[in-house]
Amino acid sequence: MRVSVCRKAHFNAAHRLHNKAWTAEKNEQVFGKCNNPNYHGHNYKLEVWVSGEIDEETGYLIDLKILRDIIEKEVEDRFDHKNLNLDTEEFANLNPTAENIAVVIWGLIREKLNDNLELNIKLFETDRNFVQYPAIQ
Amino acid sequence: MRVSVCRKAHFNAAHRLHNKAWTAEKNEQVFGKCNNPNYHGHNYKLEVWVSGEIDEETGYLIDLKILRDIIEKEVEDRFDHKNLNLDTEEFANLNPTAENIAVVIWGLIREKLNDNLELNIKLFETDRNFVQYPAIQ
Amino acid sequence: MRVSVCRKAHFNAAHRLHNKAWTAEKNEQVFGKCNNPNYHGHNYKLEVWVSGEIDEETGYLIDLKILRDIIEKEVEDRFDHKNLNLDTEEFANLNPTAENIAVVIWGLIREKLNDNLELNIKLFETDRNFVQYPAIQ
Amino acid sequence: MRVSVCRKAHFNAAHRLHNKAWTAEKNEQVFGKCNNPNYHGHNYKLEVWVSGEIDEETGYLIDLKILRDIIEKEVEDRFDHKNLNLDTEEFANLNPTAENIAVVIWGLIREKLNDNLELNIKLFETDRNFVQYPAIQ
Amino acid sequence: MRVSVCRKAHFNAAHRLHNKAWTAEKNEQVFGKCNNPNYHGHNYKLEVWVSGEIDEETGYLIDLKILRDIIEKEVEDRFDHKNLNLDTEEFANLNPTAENIAVVIWGLIREKLNDNLELNIKLFETDRNFVQYPAIQ
Amino acid sequence: MRVSVCRKAHFNAAHRLHNKAWTAEKNEQVFGKCNNPNYHGHNYKLEVWVSGEIDEETGYLIDLKILRDIIEKEVEDRFDHKNLNLDTEEFANLNPTAENIAVVIWGLIREKLNDNLELNIKLFETDRNFVQYPAIQ
Repeated sequence: MRVSVCRKAHFNAAHRLHNKAWTAEKNEQVFGKCNNPNYHGHNYKLEVWVSGEIDEETGYLIDLKILRDIIEKEVEDRFDHKNLNLDTEEFANLNPTAENIAVVIWGLIREKLNDNLELNIKLFETDRNFVQYPAIQ
Repeated sequence: MRVSVCRKAHFNAAHRLHNKAWTAEKNEQVFGKCNNPNYHGHNYKLEVWVSGEIDEETGYLIDLKILRDIIEKEVEDRFDHKNLNLDTEEFANLNPTAENIAVVIWGLIREKLNDNLELNIKLFETDRNFVQYPAIQ
Repeated sequence: MRVSVCRKAHFNAAHRLHNKAWTAEKNEQVFGKCNNPNYHGHNYKLEVWVSGEIDEETGYLIDLKILRDIIEKEVEDRFDHKNLNLDTEEFANLNPTAENIAVVIWGLIREKLNDNLELNIKLFETDRNFVQYPAIQ
Repeated sequence: MRVSVCRKAHFNAAHRLHNKAWTAEKNEQVFGKCNNPNYHGHNYKLEVWVSGEIDEETGYLIDLKILRDIIEKEVEDRFDHKNLNLDTEEFANLNPTAENIAVVIWGLIREKLNDNLELNIKLFETDRNFVQYPAIQ
Repeated sequence: MRVSVCRKAHFNAAHRLHNKAWTAEKNEQVFGKCNNPNYHGHNYKLEVWVSGEIDEETGYLIDLKILRDIIEKEVEDRFDHKNLNLDTEEFANLNPTAENIAVVIWGLIREKLNDNLELNIKLFETDRNFVQYPAIQ
Repeated sequence: MRVSVCRKAHFNAAHRLHNKAWTAEKNEQVFGKCNNPNYHGHNYKLEVWVSGEIDEETGYLIDLKILRDIIEKEVEDRFDHKNLNLDTEEFANLNPTAENIAVVIWGLIREKLNDNLELNIKLFETDRNFVQYPAIQ
């Protein structure tokens, strides 16, 4: 009776793709307009997938109010209406690509989740580009 | 040449989350407003995923008209415009959480499907909360 | 500089279409499975459109936090996770069709809105059926 | 035979709501987290609606390739992957609320459009908040 | 109490943009790849909006089952899984642009609708290009 | 640090389901209106999922501009605004069902992708019918 449940969330943030170890020219060449020094931004959409056994008494895998509170505290309060490069310690020295943001969010939620639950993250940077962590099996 | 095909369906139903073995207070505390004794309701959306080998003659995995008829008979006729707690035998003694509904639908369709086909169910209770059965690998 | 702004909301409710002045047969004939005496339900989605002049100082038509609070108090607290026929005074004697729900919501929000603002309501009963009040010009 | 046609577009930008004539305290009080001095961002979605008579020879109201080029040059090249407050002259001294952005875009496209065509703009700042200019009649 | 209600429908069809009075070169120049002599195709989505007074007895503007049957007979049976240029008399001599298809559908439904109801058609050729008839006021 | 990234694309094409080895009667019986000799069409939507290790220097799995160019050259230029049965060599002798189209697209992109990357294809023929290749594990 292993089931997965999903809770959606979103946050609106500014960011800039930039590798501090590179020259301005190389950054411009690799990241193009995503390297704009004045930043640009996105409405990030998040799907948090949790997997495990259904509890027979409640019929729930997890009370989604608990999951909602974890996401609100660990993700939304931290990243919503923020500049990822300037306002967060997670991306002070890590390039905020969609791939890296997904891995960071996975780590933040993983710490707060019971060990018997598995976690998968889907992050939509736009409606056309999105990532999943861990990777599709 | 193993491929998965998906057919969508939907049904609109009333339900109430309730554990008959518990006191009214405990039900209220665990299920909150989902425990409203007069029921509330949802537009449930369903994705039925079937996996197997493509038939070389037709180029189909399965004729989707056959799958559509199974879903119509086993799911829509049974649950659409119904009160899940009062009008169905499946949830007369089973709490109609999204998790349990997904498992029940999986069982109903599984019985009518050829043994060489695998089945996965995705059930959307709202646009924000949804479940998948069996769980993500 | 007249502009319209829209805020979305949603509520999940049970209902039954029924005219108390009619026989059971006539109700069944006109409303079909929507007349189920045990109710069914929907995820109602709401678009609240407000029109007027942009305020030069703020660049806002209306602070959407104010509109959000009106919608939350007048619509969501009143109808979310409720049985429209049994739990609300608005539909105790009014058939809760999508048309009537849209008109009722318009009246509830209109009362709380400044006179210089115009109001339009769009209500989605499902993804396929929806209404707009007042009517398209 | 007056018809309206719509072309969609999008741009991803950073912005900050701020009235330079106000104190920091008043800005913070009115605009809340949208006033973050380090900016945040959005995936803006745009619907450009043009109305007029169908051309009998082509069956077109307007060749959408022409409309696409106008939108690309006047809106996307100007605002995509930009910081609206810092990188654009339009919002150097105008608060980039969704209302003001819609009015500005209307003006930019209006100048390039034939006089016999009418123009309506719908701008989605998020999936929940959006504006229309001119206002609904 | 004038309200508008909408019913959605869809049909999948092949078509080719072509003006028989023009040379092949001019057709190619004006319509580009939409002029492919072997046709291409679309999933057309349709919104049929009807406006009028709510019936006090039913709470309906119109029984949507009636509207559904009109759309099925007049639009879906006629155009679904068809080649618009070859299989329909409506477009035997009329270029099947989205604009013209919308006007034709308006005429087909208008004939079957009570005189006291107003009709508006929204036709989506793709998710990015769509038309409305009559035009936005 | 294995992650999956997705890029979306779309193409609009005409097709006809048909097995040349069968009689007209059998084709009509199996494929129904999808067998229309004059073709019908779809807006095909494509999700291209690529999986592998995040590059530490860029924070990317793959530069999405590279993936976009592969999709444009291998899929869009080949199939967009085409008649799959008449205009493409891939489906000259292969029935263009959604299942077969997904397998063909997988093969076309697989050839252009680095060996260390895994590939999954999701193809939407309509909003209700879609396929995934390889199959769900």
